[in-house]
Amino acid sequence: MVRLKLGMVGGGQGAFIGGVHRMAARLDGCYELVAGAFASDSLRAHVSAAELGVSVDRSYDNYSDMAKAESARPDGIDVVSIVTPNHLHGPIAEAFLAQNIHVICDKPMTATLAQAESLMAAAAVSDASFFLTHNYTAYPMIRQAQQMVTEGALGDIQIVEANYLQDWLSDVPKTDNKQAMWRTDPTQSGGGAIGDIGTHAYNLVCFVTGLRTKTLNATLHTHVAGRAVDDDARVTLHFHGGARGHIWASQVAVGNENNLTLAVYGTKGSIRWSQENPNNLWFSKLGAAPQMFTRGGGSSYPSAAAVTRIPAGHPEGYLEAFATLYREAAEVIIASGKTTQQSAVIGIEQGFEGVRFVDACQRSSKAHAAWVTL
Amino acid sequence: MVRLKLGMVGGGQGAFIGGVHRMAARLDGCYELVAGAFASDSLRAHVSAAELGVSVDRSYDNYSDMAKAESARPDGIDVVSIVTPNHLHGPIAEAFLAQNIHVICDKPMTATLAQAESLMAAAAVSDASFFLTHNYTAYPMIRQAQQMVTEGALGDIQIVEANYLQDWLSDVPKTDNKQAMWRTDPTQSGGGAIGDIGTHAYNLVCFVTGLRTKTLNATLHTHVAGRAVDDDARVTLHFHGGARGHIWASQVAVGNENNLTLAVYGTKGSIRWSQENPNNLWFSKLGAAPQMFTRGGGSSYPSAAAVTRIPAGHPEGYLEAFATLYREAAEVIIASGKTTQQSAVIGIEQGFEGVRFVDACQRSSKAHAAWVTL
Amino acid sequence: MVRLKLGMVGGGQGAFIGGVHRMAARLDGCYELVAGAFASDSLRAHVSAAELGVSVDRSYDNYSDMAKAESARPDGIDVVSIVTPNHLHGPIAEAFLAQNIHVICDKPMTATLAQAESLMAAAAVSDASFFLTHNYTAYPMIRQAQQMVTEGALGDIQIVEANYLQDWLSDVPKTDNKQAMWRTDPTQSGGGAIGDIGTHAYNLVCFVTGLRTKTLNATLHTHVAGRAVDDDARVTLHFHGGARGHIWASQVAVGNENNLTLAVYGTKGSIRWSQENPNNLWFSKLGAAPQMFTRGGGSSYPSAAAVTRIPAGHPEGYLEAFATLYREAAEVIIASGKTTQQSAVIGIEQGFEGVRFVDACQRSSKAHAAWVTL
Amino acid sequence: MVRLKLGMVGGGQGAFIGGVHRMAARLDGCYELVAGAFASDSLRAHVSAAELGVSVDRSYDNYSDMAKAESARPDGIDVVSIVTPNHLHGPIAEAFLAQNIHVICDKPMTATLAQAESLMAAAAVSDASFFLTHNYTAYPMIRQAQQMVTEGALGDIQIVEANYLQDWLSDVPKTDNKQAMWRTDPTQSGGGAIGDIGTHAYNLVCFVTGLRTKTLNATLHTHVAGRAVDDDARVTLHFHGGARGHIWASQVAVGNENNLTLAVYGTKGSIRWSQENPNNLWFSKLGAAPQMFTRGGGSSYPSAAAVTRIPAGHPEGYLEAFATLYREAAEVIIASGKTTQQSAVIGIEQGFEGVRFVDACQRSSKAHAAWVTL
Repeated sequence: MVRLKLGMVGGGQGAFIGGVHRMAARLDGCYELVAGAFASDSLRAHVSAAELGVSVDRSYDNYSDMAKAESARPDGIDVVSIVTPNHLHGPIAEAFLAQNIHVICDKPMTATLAQAESLMAAAAVSDASFFLTHNYTAYPMIRQAQQMVTEGALGDIQIVEANYLQDWLSDVPKTDNKQAMWRTDPTQSGGGAIGDIGTHAYNLVCFVTGLRTKTLNATLHTHVAGRAVDDDARVTLHFHGGARGHIWASQVAVGNENNLTLAVYGTKGSIRWSQENPNNLWFSKLGAAPQMFTRGGGSSYPSAAAVTRIPAGHPEGYLEAFATLYREAAEVIIASGKTTQQSAVIGIEQGFEGVRFVDACQRSSKAHAAWVTL
Repeated sequence: MVRLKLGMVGGGQGAFIGGVHRMAARLDGCYELVAGAFASDSLRAHVSAAELGVSVDRSYDNYSDMAKAESARPDGIDVVSIVTPNHLHGPIAEAFLAQNIHVICDKPMTATLAQAESLMAAAAVSDASFFLTHNYTAYPMIRQAQQMVTEGALGDIQIVEANYLQDWLSDVPKTDNKQAMWRTDPTQSGGGAIGDIGTHAYNLVCFVTGLRTKTLNATLHTHVAGRAVDDDARVTLHFHGGARGHIWASQVAVGNENNLTLAVYGTKGSIRWSQENPNNLWFSKLGAAPQMFTRGGGSSYPSAAAVTRIPAGHPEGYLEAFATLYREAAEVIIASGKTTQQSAVIGIEQGFEGVRFVDACQRSSKAHAAWVTL
Repeated sequence: MVRLKLGMVGGGQGAFIGGVHRMAARLDGCYELVAGAFASDSLRAHVSAAELGVSVDRSYDNYSDMAKAESARPDGIDVVSIVTPNHLHGPIAEAFLAQNIHVICDKPMTATLAQAESLMAAAAVSDASFFLTHNYTAYPMIRQAQQMVTEGALGDIQIVEANYLQDWLSDVPKTDNKQAMWRTDPTQSGGGAIGDIGTHAYNLVCFVTGLRTKTLNATLHTHVAGRAVDDDARVTLHFHGGARGHIWASQVAVGNENNLTLAVYGTKGSIRWSQENPNNLWFSKLGAAPQMFTRGGGSSYPSAAAVTRIPAGHPEGYLEAFATLYREAAEVIIASGKTTQQSAVIGIEQGFEGVRFVDACQRSSKAHAAWVTL
Repeated sequence: MVRLKLGMVGGGQGAFIGGVHRMAARLDGCYELVAGAFASDSLRAHVSAAELGVSVDRSYDNYSDMAKAESARPDGIDVVSIVTPNHLHGPIAEAFLAQNIHVICDKPMTATLAQAESLMAAAAVSDASFFLTHNYTAYPMIRQAQQMVTEGALGDIQIVEANYLQDWLSDVPKTDNKQAMWRTDPTQSGGGAIGDIGTHAYNLVCFVTGLRTKTLNATLHTHVAGRAVDDDARVTLHFHGGARGHIWASQVAVGNENNLTLAVYGTKGSIRWSQENPNNLWFSKLGAAPQMFTRGGGSSYPSAAAVTRIPAGHPEGYLEAFATLYREAAEVIIASGKTTQQSAVIGIEQGFEGVRFVDACQRSSKAHAAWVTL
């Protein structure tokens, strides 16, 4: 099997999501990490590189140098992972796309709508692909959910409900909590709960149902005194075709860890799924006993089986789903070197949709929950 | 023990909630059913009376005769249960209150705001008490939830979420389904999901948290073509003091039976409860492992223990909670003959609040989810 | 409807199960409590009678007087409930059966095999019926489970597993804990966990599967120092026809309240049920997604629907199941005055089987888990 | 970081557990797969090697050649993974230990007691270490369970219950089901359910509680006609010190996938864990509300935190636990090159204990559940 050469921007010591990306890249053996600009602080960058087995000459001080130098090498990276705070996603992605290096970027795609538009333009003229890690879409039972909706098992979709509840920002965070600090700084994050987790919920809704938003209203609220971004967001969605949706994203809902749930109700049936027990998918057909589909079980759909690694009853989790995104990106890259038609893969269009969603929610909320279009 | 003499209006053959009220009245031995106007159809009324062991001379053709005749008897009823469609609650209650006969009435209190105001006036000049059967407030763990909130176990309340999901109206009902027919007829019900189950959710929110609504917006929607009332309702609540709430009531959420859930999030902790597993109450203290309180368990609060009949692990259910309301009404009646201070008992003020809530939701929804006051 | 006249022996102030029997008798309005010998202590007996609305002349000092006096009255009781410690069940039941008064008796039927044999003989010559309150058999989903097994939904039964776990005897009980004191006194109880809860589990196994025991081995163990009866029992069952069973009953399994579970595995499917969530029944067909049947739901079987009072999603519990036994006893009594063929009703044969089961387990355990026959 | 050079015996195309070992080895980047004898069939072996990126010159026809050749290379493998059917584990492990190459071996350690004794002798004279992949011991909440028991949170352990239920062998397997064929062939597996999954349950019991078996009795049963090994096993354990244990392992319990559960009951508290929801650990302190510890949550113990990769609420699963074993083996190897004190790591002593357990169960069962010692 071909193993792609991978670089990384961000993800040095003390980071969280960088390590996740690295484990995801390793699990299926499709990538080898060979280069990086792991931190804005030069010392921390190089120490991190050494720890990660990246050679000194490919540990860079900044992403700009890295993009140019790797592009110039005959053995330069095929793809770069961007795992920095949100406001840097756009500029970094553009730098690598300009060198025709594929990009795998953490979400949300950018911190602002202007950045998103700029990145869209850059991607349009690049020979490389852009992948966004809305990782929850890669859980096997979410793939099955999408297939069930598409095949009509639920009838016409009427109601969609997605909640993403956390409690880790219930208090004023300590200043040494890097994750909390940049996420609650609007200049780095572009938004609070709505951007950090609301976009995941929205992406999941769109991915599974294929519905398109007609109008929405939103209330973004800040419960913790002094916080500069929202920590609790409610969004009501009216979709084209008449279906209704609701998203609740909160980072102050005490007792919740990463409680992302999705329910889709149609005229004939419904499905329910919870990220914290991702190997099960409940299906209720109107008038019949609810059934619990299990990942890998005899009742699995092909779409779930295709991204299942181990037998039923042996739980797969978050890292496996993340790794599936990495594997699917590798398959796209290896297949064509350039594509924008990526089946289940989340690409730049979905990323743009997510940034537009955040922007619309912020506009609605400022207007006291007025109805707005994306 | 004194056993109160009970009459009933409605609840004849083919009815649902009348039987529930009778079982609730019997469980603790506080009532004896001795009179009734069990149906609008005279024959069905008298056959029902015979089946229920009510003597012929106390089986009435209509509530009006019954109120007068029972009032005139030396052994006349102490209290009447009203278990008719909503639009009759008000007139019937007024007829009995006028005779100083206590009233236990199914919810919502009335079908319209005008009826509610009229009933408030009638109650004010009666010597008898009015009780409303928002039965979910009598579950032991809901009593404990209320106590925990009151005692500050959750800190300051920030977010309240109550959902009441059913699926029994997902389709156009058959015309012989009496329950469905009157509930989807606005002249009899006064509203759809918002009145039938939304009021339960709202009452539960108010009961447990003690919060008072400042403004709300609501979207009442009808998914089933041709239906004259809403079958899906979403309400956003802004409470005095800054807390936020959300209610979702649906009768077309396939796969849900009587899935009423309540979650209350405070600055220090949260509680979560589900009516379909009512003997448990989850409590999460910020930063600590979630705890599962059980009805009757060693960790029960006094408020829960006071309404618990059997030991932990032997489930109590819906009828027990309903019976608690009946027992508490009996205690109030026996204690004073007349009171408006009924501790946990749901009375006319709460009933009025519920009707105002429905009215406000209907006004907001007509104005495209505008913010309104009650 | 005919209302049977009910007497009670035991169940005075401070008792537990007597109150349960009274609520069960009241719920469906089939009985009126009119007489009793509520306590061995005369004062407590009469005070209890007064509290329960039983007239002074029908409050007896002992069961023997009561049986004779009630038999002599023209308005004497139709049926007596026996809710005393186990060692008195037999003598009391015999006294009433001798007067042709029907008996509803708490389990286990007797404290010893000799008592059981004596009672069998007494019942054989009485015109009255004997009913045993193995109440778990009256849960609607247990009725459905029985029907599913009978109809072959599981194929041939291979394995049955019933556990009944409690923790209320994990410590040496306080001497004022009457329930604990007599249950851990072998002269009153006849055995510990095996008799108190093991018989429930065994009865449930027999009721649902119809299997008959060929041989068994048992280990009865006492974990709490100084206790005179077993507090933890394990029984391996080999049934006629080749199926295997296992029962674990413990009163020292910390963290369990009344955690009675049943699982039945056949060649084609399995069912699983838990008493603490009694409204659900899991059914797994080999190779298909597990289904969750709900009490009252569209997928309910007739046998479950027949003993269901309220709609799906409104939980019924322990008292409702107990009340079903009382109602079914009333139906048998009213229908015939005398019957030994009681469909789902648990009668003297099943009671005798339970006492033989305890006896066999005690014999096996004394012989170091030797294989024995009943 | 040092990356160990890994070889593999078994695990070619069509195999199951080999792929698991490879993903586990990759996840943390501690190993690089460089050599293998992937199948007994030469063609399949070499095609598998090519697929896995192993160079032609290090793809061997048999393990014996591989052990010698790799030992002779300056860049030879540090460690070999053995993922063949059980009867080959012993001979292969001995071949590599003889070359002082570390061994990571799938369970059970060997198919027979004689093989286990031979391997013990071989290990004693080797400079290399032997690791057994009882992977369930590496789940974070199992590590926490062990710590809680050790620290006395449960008091004195009284009862241990471990069940491992599957249904994949409920029918006669198809002959092209390689996994089923060798597992039901006693010459390859050494036993049925007792060896395949019973040993996992037993290892988990020993790992978490530290208890040592005094005597046991066992009933191994074959439900599926014509099968040459047991498919259902029950074992009663009496431990030194007085605690009691029970293991039930079944491969014909319809509706179960990999339903491995552990419950440990002490005088002061209990813990309960389920492999299919491995991120939770229930803890019940006598008299207090049950608590649900979560992996990565604020209440995590150090032992759990040490093997946790991602934040609470993002589920880790089976592969992560397996990868932890690989990482810990790497740490031991890197630290010393040779050690027999491997903290949480499962080594040859535990492997030997497992084979003795299977042997004892088989002896007891043949003697009709007689009590035996290991």
